[in-house]
Amino acid sequence: MTSRDFLAVPRTTPTRNRQRVSYDRSAVHAVLDEATLCHVGFVVDGEPVVLPQLYARIEDRLYLHGSSGARALHTAEGQGLAVCVTVTLVDGIVLARSAFHHSINYRSVVAHGTATVVADPEEKKAALSALVDAVVPGRSAHTREPSPKELAATTVLCLPLSEVSLKVRSGPPSDDPADLDLGYWAGVLPLATTPGLPLAAPDLRGAMPVPEHVLAWGVPLS
Amino acid sequence: MTSRDFLAVPRTTPTRNRQRVSYDRSAVHAVLDEATLCHVGFVVDGEPVVLPQLYARIEDRLYLHGSSGARALHTAEGQGLAVCVTVTLVDGIVLARSAFHHSINYRSVVAHGTATVVADPEEKKAALSALVDAVVPGRSAHTREPSPKELAATTVLCLPLSEVSLKVRSGPPSDDPADLDLGYWAGVLPLATTPGLPLAAPDLRGAMPVPEHVLAWGVPLS
Repeated sequence: MTSRDFLAVPRTTPTRNRQRVSYDRSAVHAVLDEATLCHVGFVVDGEPVVLPQLYARIEDRLYLHGSSGARALHTAEGQGLAVCVTVTLVDGIVLARSAFHHSINYRSVVAHGTATVVADPEEKKAALSALVDAVVPGRSAHTREPSPKELAATTVLCLPLSEVSLKVRSGPPSDDPADLDLGYWAGVLPLATTPGLPLAAPDLRGAMPVPEHVLAWGVPLS
Repeated sequence: MTSRDFLAVPRTTPTRNRQRVSYDRSAVHAVLDEATLCHVGFVVDGEPVVLPQLYARIEDRLYLHGSSGARALHTAEGQGLAVCVTVTLVDGIVLARSAFHHSINYRSVVAHGTATVVADPEEKKAALSALVDAVVPGRSAHTREPSPKELAATTVLCLPLSEVSLKVRSGPPSDDPADLDLGYWAGVLPLATTPGLPLAAPDLRGAMPVPEHVLAWGVPLS
């Protein structure tokens, strides 16, 4: 462990497959920055709720947003909302000779903590801007900024990244030696999220070219 | 509502964007059958936990599996485990003129209920077979079946689909009329999960062709 690592705590320490788990801050950031969607878990009346959400990372803080009318966000206004935010990238399907050793290559970040409402107007604006750029890098410069009414209609939550772990499975299948001669094909089918052709809005004025920040989506920066 | 619909209950009835929610059984099944991964939420010591998991659907039952040593699965052995299983397909990025109206086109199923351990050996075998076929349709016929030892090492959970909802956002951005002349490009960037070239396992015996069920992955059946 280096000083750049997140601290391992009991609930981020798995009981199995420990070799797949890391607390490396840069690796965690990289997964959070590559993915588009997270799944946020919270507890309502003792029962779990999991919802898909957009998010943005700024340094060691995750920002979530939603309508000021949303139930979960009301809960967060008091002492904050205990959440588990999970972000998963699927990199491939692992096909083994045995059904048992089939698996998925993936990178998954799990962050536990208490999400609180962002009250500071400047932090809120920066978070909303980051939320747009998290989905399409560079997009926020090509939009109308939120109006005061829109800002009031939106609640932004901040989750400090503290209890965080990254779990990764990569590479070929791990078959039992006795299965290697069974004659079944084995390997990995890589999967990726790929963009299609941009579809202009029907109410676009005139023939406007698709901007560079849209065409560049998903192309790693060199 | 038809008799084919799931029944709406309070926790599957949203407070906002109700027009995006459906309880249509066929539409729910279609999303569950298309996606590969779910995010399972449960409560540990009053706090939420969300983990990515493979799953399979058979009729109106979702099956999950894991190592018999996993903590959550131990909890399920008693009266079952209260879970929220969420499956999300991202179909595109919605780029509006205003930051506020940026969104995602998606289809997301949320299922609440109690997952219980499958004790019946035949049901367990069928579920494990379905779990392989859920990831790569047709694959289970090209694998070695689980041994008694592997079966004992695996716990299978069943979640009856009862409190289930589907939320869908599709189509172009919904900009405010006053924003249409701002000169910003708007539209949708479609996203899809696409397979790459299959990578044979390094320990594959000889030059075995990639089987049809691998090459056909993600190609809709005609």
